[in-house]
Amino acid sequence: MIDMVDTESLLEVAYEEAQRGLAEGGIPIGAALFDSAGNLLGRGHNRRVQNDDPSVHAETDAFRDAGRRRDYRDTIMVTTLSPCWYCSGLVRQFGIGAVVVGEARTFHGGHEWLAENGVTITVVDDPRCVAMMEKFIAERPELWFEDIGVAE
Amino acid sequence: MIDMVDTESLLEVAYEEAQRGLAEGGIPIGAALFDSAGNLLGRGHNRRVQNDDPSVHAETDAFRDAGRRRDYRDTIMVTTLSPCWYCSGLVRQFGIGAVVVGEARTFHGGHEWLAENGVTITVVDDPRCVAMMEKFIAERPELWFEDIGVAE
Repeated sequence: MIDMVDTESLLEVAYEEAQRGLAEGGIPIGAALFDSAGNLLGRGHNRRVQNDDPSVHAETDAFRDAGRRRDYRDTIMVTTLSPCWYCSGLVRQFGIGAVVVGEARTFHGGHEWLAENGVTITVVDDPRCVAMMEKFIAERPELWFEDIGVAE
Repeated sequence: MIDMVDTESLLEVAYEEAQRGLAEGGIPIGAALFDSAGNLLGRGHNRRVQNDDPSVHAETDAFRDAGRRRDYRDTIMVTTLSPCWYCSGLVRQFGIGAVVVGEARTFHGGHEWLAENGVTITVVDDPRCVAMMEKFIAERPELWFEDIGVAE
């Protein structure tokens, strides 16, 4: 499925979303949902700071933006960062067929668990995504740990 | 932790939320987040129909209603129905310490996976919760399958 589309161009949309979030003073994680032909269905970014809402991770925002849908099997979730358990659970429950991960160096979420459960996983290991999160985590560690539920 | 509070009274809040959702024309699943002393932190219900939003399950809504928080270890998520993978992922990622499940007969989600990962799980097996979902699923199967990502 993933071979049918250009992974880098899909990741570009998620990266733009992460940069948008950063410009808003938020956590720079972006995501986008596409169909298997590469058509954009929804896009979004983490809104913890902007909306004062802990429930909106980048993948949640993109999933919401895509609206209601009966069948996600032919969809691809693209995210700048390895999906946390919350977002991995979203992918598994709704049967999203594939996930493209920008990078999994600064945070290692549930993408291997998803692969074990039949989801096609592509880890791009994009240097821009790595640099973006490394800088953010160094500058705002408290905010980052809050976003992934790491207590003090 | 759970022994410190009355499980039935906590479940009552989640049940009221489910009934509220049903009265709004929505899917009757409710949830509430409490601290370990039984103080209510947030409450909510599934909003797929009401908000036209597939990302708001009952647990998500209660979690959002509780606002931003750095540490969830002493919190209890109470839900009328076994949490799906999306909501189980929420519990695991944010380190919520305990989950009270109204029933797990009409839907079996990730509560055992949570137990394996250190979350205290209590399944009440409440007859009202079972009857509420059995009636809903019989009347609105398409909506129910949409909400748990079961494709046609």
